[in-house]
Amino acid sequence: MKILLLNGPNLNMLGKREPGVYGQGTLRDVEAAVANLAAAHGAEVECRQSNHEGTLVDWLQEADEAGFAGVIFNPGAYTHYSYALRDAIAGIRVPVIEVHISNIHARENFRHTSVTAAVCRGQISGLGTKGYELAFFALMEMEKEREL
Amino acid sequence: MKILLLNGPNLNMLGKREPGVYGQGTLRDVEAAVANLAAAHGAEVECRQSNHEGTLVDWLQEADEAGFAGVIFNPGAYTHYSYALRDAIAGIRVPVIEVHISNIHARENFRHTSVTAAVCRGQISGLGTKGYELAFFALMEMEKEREL
Amino acid sequence: MKILLLNGPNLNMLGKREPGVYGQGTLRDVEAAVANLAAAHGAEVECRQSNHEGTLVDWLQEADEAGFAGVIFNPGAYTHYSYALRDAIAGIRVPVIEVHISNIHARENFRHTSVTAAVCRGQISGLGTKGYELAFFALMEMEKEREL
Amino acid sequence: MKILLLNGPNLNMLGKREPGVYGQGTLRDVEAAVANLAAAHGAEVECRQSNHEGTLVDWLQEADEAGFAGVIFNPGAYTHYSYALRDAIAGIRVPVIEVHISNIHARENFRHTSVTAAVCRGQISGLGTKGYELAFFALMEMEKEREL
Amino acid sequence: MKILLLNGPNLNMLGKREPGVYGQGTLRDVEAAVANLAAAHGAEVECRQSNHEGTLVDWLQEADEAGFAGVIFNPGAYTHYSYALRDAIAGIRVPVIEVHISNIHARENFRHTSVTAAVCRGQISGLGTKGYELAFFALMEMEKEREL
Amino acid sequence: MKILLLNGPNLNMLGKREPGVYGQGTLRDVEAAVANLAAAHGAEVECRQSNHEGTLVDWLQEADEAGFAGVIFNPGAYTHYSYALRDAIAGIRVPVIEVHISNIHARENFRHTSVTAAVCRGQISGLGTKGYELAFFALMEMEKEREL
Amino acid sequence: MKILLLNGPNLNMLGKREPGVYGQGTLRDVEAAVANLAAAHGAEVECRQSNHEGTLVDWLQEADEAGFAGVIFNPGAYTHYSYALRDAIAGIRVPVIEVHISNIHARENFRHTSVTAAVCRGQISGLGTKGYELAFFALMEMEKEREL
Amino acid sequence: MKILLLNGPNLNMLGKREPGVYGQGTLRDVEAAVANLAAAHGAEVECRQSNHEGTLVDWLQEADEAGFAGVIFNPGAYTHYSYALRDAIAGIRVPVIEVHISNIHARENFRHTSVTAAVCRGQISGLGTKGYELAFFALMEMEKEREL
Amino acid sequence: MKILLLNGPNLNMLGKREPGVYGQGTLRDVEAAVANLAAAHGAEVECRQSNHEGTLVDWLQEADEAGFAGVIFNPGAYTHYSYALRDAIAGIRVPVIEVHISNIHARENFRHTSVTAAVCRGQISGLGTKGYELAFFALMEMEKEREL
Amino acid sequence: MKILLLNGPNLNMLGKREPGVYGQGTLRDVEAAVANLAAAHGAEVECRQSNHEGTLVDWLQEADEAGFAGVIFNPGAYTHYSYALRDAIAGIRVPVIEVHISNIHARENFRHTSVTAAVCRGQISGLGTKGYELAFFALMEMEKEREL
Amino acid sequence: MKILLLNGPNLNMLGKREPGVYGQGTLRDVEAAVANLAAAHGAEVECRQSNHEGTLVDWLQEADEAGFAGVIFNPGAYTHYSYALRDAIAGIRVPVIEVHISNIHARENFRHTSVTAAVCRGQISGLGTKGYELAFFALMEMEKEREL
Amino acid sequence: MKILLLNGPNLNMLGKREPGVYGQGTLRDVEAAVANLAAAHGAEVECRQSNHEGTLVDWLQEADEAGFAGVIFNPGAYTHYSYALRDAIAGIRVPVIEVHISNIHARENFRHTSVTAAVCRGQISGLGTKGYELAFFALMEMEKEREL
Repeated sequence: MKILLLNGPNLNMLGKREPGVYGQGTLRDVEAAVANLAAAHGAEVECRQSNHEGTLVDWLQEADEAGFAGVIFNPGAYTHYSYALRDAIAGIRVPVIEVHISNIHARENFRHTSVTAAVCRGQISGLGTKGYELAFFALMEMEKEREL
Repeated sequence: MKILLLNGPNLNMLGKREPGVYGQGTLRDVEAAVANLAAAHGAEVECRQSNHEGTLVDWLQEADEAGFAGVIFNPGAYTHYSYALRDAIAGIRVPVIEVHISNIHARENFRHTSVTAAVCRGQISGLGTKGYELAFFALMEMEKEREL
Repeated sequence: MKILLLNGPNLNMLGKREPGVYGQGTLRDVEAAVANLAAAHGAEVECRQSNHEGTLVDWLQEADEAGFAGVIFNPGAYTHYSYALRDAIAGIRVPVIEVHISNIHARENFRHTSVTAAVCRGQISGLGTKGYELAFFALMEMEKEREL
Repeated sequence: MKILLLNGPNLNMLGKREPGVYGQGTLRDVEAAVANLAAAHGAEVECRQSNHEGTLVDWLQEADEAGFAGVIFNPGAYTHYSYALRDAIAGIRVPVIEVHISNIHARENFRHTSVTAAVCRGQISGLGTKGYELAFFALMEMEKEREL
Repeated sequence: MKILLLNGPNLNMLGKREPGVYGQGTLRDVEAAVANLAAAHGAEVECRQSNHEGTLVDWLQEADEAGFAGVIFNPGAYTHYSYALRDAIAGIRVPVIEVHISNIHARENFRHTSVTAAVCRGQISGLGTKGYELAFFALMEMEKEREL
Repeated sequence: MKILLLNGPNLNMLGKREPGVYGQGTLRDVEAAVANLAAAHGAEVECRQSNHEGTLVDWLQEADEAGFAGVIFNPGAYTHYSYALRDAIAGIRVPVIEVHISNIHARENFRHTSVTAAVCRGQISGLGTKGYELAFFALMEMEKEREL
Repeated sequence: MKILLLNGPNLNMLGKREPGVYGQGTLRDVEAAVANLAAAHGAEVECRQSNHEGTLVDWLQEADEAGFAGVIFNPGAYTHYSYALRDAIAGIRVPVIEVHISNIHARENFRHTSVTAAVCRGQISGLGTKGYELAFFALMEMEKEREL
Repeated sequence: MKILLLNGPNLNMLGKREPGVYGQGTLRDVEAAVANLAAAHGAEVECRQSNHEGTLVDWLQEADEAGFAGVIFNPGAYTHYSYALRDAIAGIRVPVIEVHISNIHARENFRHTSVTAAVCRGQISGLGTKGYELAFFALMEMEKEREL
Repeated sequence: MKILLLNGPNLNMLGKREPGVYGQGTLRDVEAAVANLAAAHGAEVECRQSNHEGTLVDWLQEADEAGFAGVIFNPGAYTHYSYALRDAIAGIRVPVIEVHISNIHARENFRHTSVTAAVCRGQISGLGTKGYELAFFALMEMEKEREL
Repeated sequence: MKILLLNGPNLNMLGKREPGVYGQGTLRDVEAAVANLAAAHGAEVECRQSNHEGTLVDWLQEADEAGFAGVIFNPGAYTHYSYALRDAIAGIRVPVIEVHISNIHARENFRHTSVTAAVCRGQISGLGTKGYELAFFALMEMEKEREL
Repeated sequence: MKILLLNGPNLNMLGKREPGVYGQGTLRDVEAAVANLAAAHGAEVECRQSNHEGTLVDWLQEADEAGFAGVIFNPGAYTHYSYALRDAIAGIRVPVIEVHISNIHARENFRHTSVTAAVCRGQISGLGTKGYELAFFALMEMEKEREL
Repeated sequence: MKILLLNGPNLNMLGKREPGVYGQGTLRDVEAAVANLAAAHGAEVECRQSNHEGTLVDWLQEADEAGFAGVIFNPGAYTHYSYALRDAIAGIRVPVIEVHISNIHARENFRHTSVTAAVCRGQISGLGTKGYELAFFALMEMEKEREL
């Protein structure tokens, strides 16, 4: 079982900016934690990050063809307006789980909290970098159900 | 470690209505699954359900005083308008994680997807009844961090 | 054929408050009129009223299991915001007809005239307490069609 | 007692288009049913249909002068925007009851469900073509009260 | 100098409905008053009324070709939504002055007070049936300026 | 009969700014024209202009006590937001007619075209400086009716 | 003279949660202060608190029949959405004064600051628990005026 | 193959009003061009125009029964608000293509650019009177596919 | 202890206009009542009224420097839109209590009931001219707390 | 004559995802069809696709300098929010025609159906991949007119 | 070259209120700094401040006639709603540059950040009191261009 | 002191498109002017432009690490919707000043004039390409203050 761990704009700054909000761990730390967890469950994780909306669309399309069992995706700020990512997620068969480190529902001034969540399988928000690991468990569960 | 598993209006109908959306398991099944998981991790779960907004407010207030380490809460339809529940959550120290079985972000016609999520620690949505178990893991993690 | 006649908040004040708007008859009078009409058609009516949203949710759920052929429901002010009642109605098989004594469409300052009507079979509004009796005829008609 | 049964745009297509939504009966069938019901109660029904907003305004004005005891009116799509019909209804003394065959409250994307309902006596919606007959009963009731 | 006095839906009911709001004079009285005033100033008035939006569009188009020096137009309820009348007015060279007998600015619940006023030369509102005569003076003034 | 001709902010610039929109005549010219017209009808006009909202409120209050038969009022930009002027107009007995030189209904980007018009007797808009004279005729008419 | 002091959801937590916002006094302290003040003026106060919307509706209805001279009511979060409480207040004769301890007008993100205030006699907000005492003075004043 | 070319309000003024926007050709010219094109492809075109919403509804209903293979429809201003036309289009089987001569998407101040487009097969906008001919090609293509 | 009693636009008309809404007492009566009450508690009241927004801003700024212990402020219509008054109140240290004689929460058509209340300490609304006296008690209480 | 056929995000998935909505043909098939059509009319087509907003902006700018006679552009999801593409289209002289395969006007939940259409020459929507060919005809027509 | 430095409501409090937001310098300090800068470039600055909207309108009108080369204008809170100032700026020839000391774009809860900026030449916001000096440079530049 | 001069989408077209709006100078001219100004003040400017949102995010992140003293940033159309750029600016320590050549506040039809300005230090808009030089002065000033 191969999982794609996808992070969007500014998440490469994790641990460098606003540690009070996002914690001290860097993106590398987060990726390592998920990879270790996956390894412990016999799965493999490929980690990518980009600030480019188009690149994220490309990668989501590839994920479908490359046989990934699922995508753990933090779209960063694109979650608020990227209908291109929304269409990309809606157009692939591989299940996508949206993860946000902080609680995006507490940012009330954004009209649509998330335009991408509607086409994802689910969303985990506000549970820190631990949210990525919970998403892994959820994908593992979906895989089990698919095999039945 | 003691956890309160709280379910709001109409969730007592789980498994009875719209199984295509909410799955075949009953609320009792879900509660048992979380209880088993907790037991396996040396924790205890108390399960309650009510269709009454005021009762849910009462229970959240009690949770604070009864020494619960966390609340896993599916507010059902109250999530869309209950500022009373929002105030109750905001007024207690025990961390609350909001869980929704189906993907509420896909129900676009509700103005504010959730008025309660903003004051919870986080939200898990769309991952089926498995979401309750993921919330348990997240609370366990918070407990560990608190102990450090 | 057994029908549930359900009245929501403040309808127990019927005939006592604002008789210019709601008429002189008390809730008891209305309930008797529907019961008599039903008896004349070989049906039975059970009458309940509550100011409590949760209690109304409980009763709607019970109606499904207790074998009622239909519910005549005046949700009172809850009609404007109770998504919990909406979900309860949507989750049961027994048909529900919403009744309002006065013409709620004339109260323009309420954003959503009714959030519950969308999941009821239909709505009768502005025809006085006579509306309850018309709802009875409609349920009787549905029963006939079901029997075909 | 003479009643005007008035149907607006596209209702001449009844039974021809979308039978799943509007049933199999044609407009002629509906008109006959109401006429029979009226005859059985010693009343008379005149049936008219037009796709023309102005013609419907003309007929409502005439109804007032021609001594009709009431109007059963399905304004079709005009219900959503015709302030001209609204003014016509508001300007006549004869009571008007608005009828919709399907549940218009379930069509959430229309801003104002009905601009005409506010000036009608009441509205019956979602109860199929049976709604026209219920409206007849309501008008009969009003007539009785007027005679007292 | 020939003027078209054009009245829209329900204005044929003038003096018959809501005399408290619109005064006791009938449409015929109003038309006579304007005609007399015009005659006194060597002008001629042609009076028309229709409840039909399309007919009003037809007449506005004709007014352009029939050599009218101006149109005094009370669009009635169409003022609130008829973009067809708006286009008709915008598409002709003859100046149009919009008249409303009552003060439409006091009817706050209509979103757009008037969609037609924007393409008229001006609007007179709330000055009773006298407003039609003031519009005549304004058209006479425009005619004078054109002749210079 | 004594009339108050009241002009609000920036109308002292008449004839100096944007003559394409407001014409070549100065405020003095306009005031003289209305004064002459009034004199010809045995009436008297007092002319005032201020850029100060509070001063306009003061003058409207005084008008009531000073025995003016009416006020011709162009509130300029205050028409779009001055609830203080609105209250002042609503609180006096002397009739006020709102005049705008250009067609304010064509300025679509202002939310509320006029907050003051609702409490004036009527509004004349878009008929150039001639509008002030038409307002005079309307006030004269009201005076006649009052004397009856 | 008997007064009902009614507190809504989460106000039983007074002095326990967010003392920075709501002060250090408990609900019991507040109730005692009002009772003492009342006693000093020869009046009597009955104190109730509930987190249940329906219970608050029940109590308001009873207040009318039990001969209370007035109700001092802090609806807590229900103030933002409870049309059921609004109807209950509107339906009773006993005067109700709404009290909020903190300044609810400073919470800008709530659409309608209060849906209940419109049907109360008045509202006191932001003056701390002292607001309850001011409400008592206001009710005493009303009682005096009624006796005249 | 028989096509109905339907034009709505004010399109009879084509070539007469605002030639800068709509070009110099009259409606007759446009109709002739489409007819010639159709003849060249062995098809026949029937051309109608009306300013009357009801008449357009009538004609759309007839088109269904008269065996037309498609309708090329420019609803003019009705496109912005006519839910009656929307229902008529939705209720017939014959495919309708909406055509606008100028680019309606550039008229930003209309809330709903088009309420009819949603139920048409497609829309062609901003390509001048050539748009009618492109619509013909599209209908011809649909006919071909239907024959397969 | 010195208090500033500040009244905004049109409040000088108190007792003269709409006595049904605002009572029979004049502003002078109200000011005398508050002055007497203050004198009885060893405090002094300075009374000012202006229709001018700028003057009210000036006075609020002076109040800060002139050593007033508090301001009782009825901003009249400015409450609905004066961000200049809002900034003035926010920029001074002296506590301001907003008073409205009638219940402004019942005037639903104003978007923001009050833009100034958010920066005042509190608001008293709907309790008649008695509200000014209650505000005095509240300021006296704040003074006591400050002295502790 | 050289044409640029430009496709935006996710259109490289044509024929692979949702064939029920977008048809079975791949993007390559569509490009070939337009190229063949062009060749038959002595024109040349260059085909490009990108998921990257910036790349699409780059290509539109180049199109202007590279002497293309027109651009056929399907902006995919960017049509709903890319003001960068809007500015790029507005800033070049070469005419752009927007094409959408499915009927975007039927997707009501998007606020602004298209932010790019306003600056294109026109838009073709809902006519399947045939829409690209119709756009070619329209560009050819524009070229002819330019040569006159 | 003569410049008018104009400050609106509450800016006379600079350095006295909220020094954390607006800095320690008083308005006098700011005016001196701009005057010195101007003197160094051979220009002259006249400094005025008022809390009165009308006075600011008066001064802007005078600036046009008094031969000022430009106005540096901080409208304070009036920037959010003063259409009177907007009209005054639009009606004069002398260029106006709007300056805000703090970043008004960060105050998201105001609907229209600035109604005056649209008619100014430009706006400088968030750069502290230094913004006034930058505005001086911009006016100097405009003057140079005018002289060419 | 090193400054980054960053220009977003379509600004590479400066001087080539719409010279009436943006002036005749090319981007190269603007960059040279700022570089010269900086050199004259002993500072250095690095100039970059991209149409790619992701690239702009990348560069802003690098600016933080590369020791730039400030960023002068014209986000072009991205200013209206790029929350990714907003987050990038918010996440770096180096101060960013937003510059717009034309007055964006005059483009009223964009909902949010700028989503990026809120997290910049300030914004300069409408002062032509001179705005870039003013931004340089502002950054120089900030540098001075930092050194104190």
